Amino acid sequence: MSENKLKIEKIRKGTVIDHIEAGYALIILNLTGLAESTNLMTIGVNVSSRKIPKKDIIKIENVFLNEVQMQQISILSPDATISLIEDYQVIEKKKVTIPKTITKLIICQNITCITNSHKEPIDTEFLVLEEKPLKIQCVYCDRIYKLEEIIFTSQEKIEKKIKQRIQL
Amino acid sequence: MSENKLKIEKIRKGTVIDHIEAGYALIILNLTGLAESTNLMTIGVNVSSRKIPKKDIIKIENVFLNEVQMQQISILSPDATISLIEDYQVIEKKKVTIPKTITKLIICQNITCITNSHKEPIDTEFLVLEEKPLKIQCVYCDRIYKLEEIIFTSQEKIEKKIKQRIQL
Repeated sequence: MSENKLKIEKIRKGTVIDHIEAGYALIILNLTGLAESTNLMTIGVNVSSRKIPKKDIIKIENVFLNEVQMQQISILSPDATISLIEDYQVIEKKKVTIPKTITKLIICQNITCITNSHKEPIDTEFLVLEEKPLKIQCVYCDRIYKLEEIIFTSQEKIEKKIKQRIQL
Repeated sequence: MSENKLKIEKIRKGTVIDHIEAGYALIILNLTGLAESTNLMTIGVNVSSRKIPKKDIIKIENVFLNEVQMQQISILSPDATISLIEDYQVIEKKKVTIPKTITKLIICQNITCITNSHKEPIDTEFLVLEEKPLKIQCVYCDRIYKLEEIIFTSQEKIEKKIKQRIQL
């Protein structure tokens, strides 16, 4: 019968990412690289909550997110909250915020865009036109993207990793 | 403070996959297609247990595994146990078993192997020579593979799915 229970203790130190859009926790873990962590993680997918019908949640011990990871989460789940835990206490809780411009994180898919120049490639930069649903515009070529059209910069790297791990 | 707790209730009906090799739960979810489920899932990664230093565990509501999924899990985590839950009770608990021959699930990477023939491709079939660590041999061309060399048949499909989901 013990298999029937998965007791989730409070974490002593680490990060709780809550109010993730339902079904996005595993994508966020892959995108941010947290999937590779050897720390204790507990993940809830399609969890019911009083406020919203379904959500995902990630708890990860001994890990604090960097700025890039927080921006990646904000793009995928604009309502997510990040709580920092020390000595079993929430020492800080913040909502993720979508930046006004997103730099480097997303690829511009216009092959003639200057960000894809082979000679002098420059970092991508997108203006956030609308936050929800997300709509962004390339600063250089003006092409507009919706959330479902976005390709993240690290995707190739991520896919390689996933491939390796599935191949083992 | 409520963010600090992730209370995991017993599941009413569904499946508990326990004693998964540490760090393999997310790979198993992707490989078996369970990652796409809209049912409640709770996942523990790198959980400490009395018997073994670290393990992963997956609980998924309203889902029962099929034979293919059980074989996929047995290849990646030969010590995994599967518990079936009905009315909050474990009605059946079994250890996964690696079959003596593995058919269709794994690709033979020998391009001259008959299983890769463009004219008359036939299903792959591997003899399990050793279970732990896994060593398998192609029935047709005799090539031997270790666990870390295996490529699963569904990988291409999986990668496409992951790509779509990361792209959103």
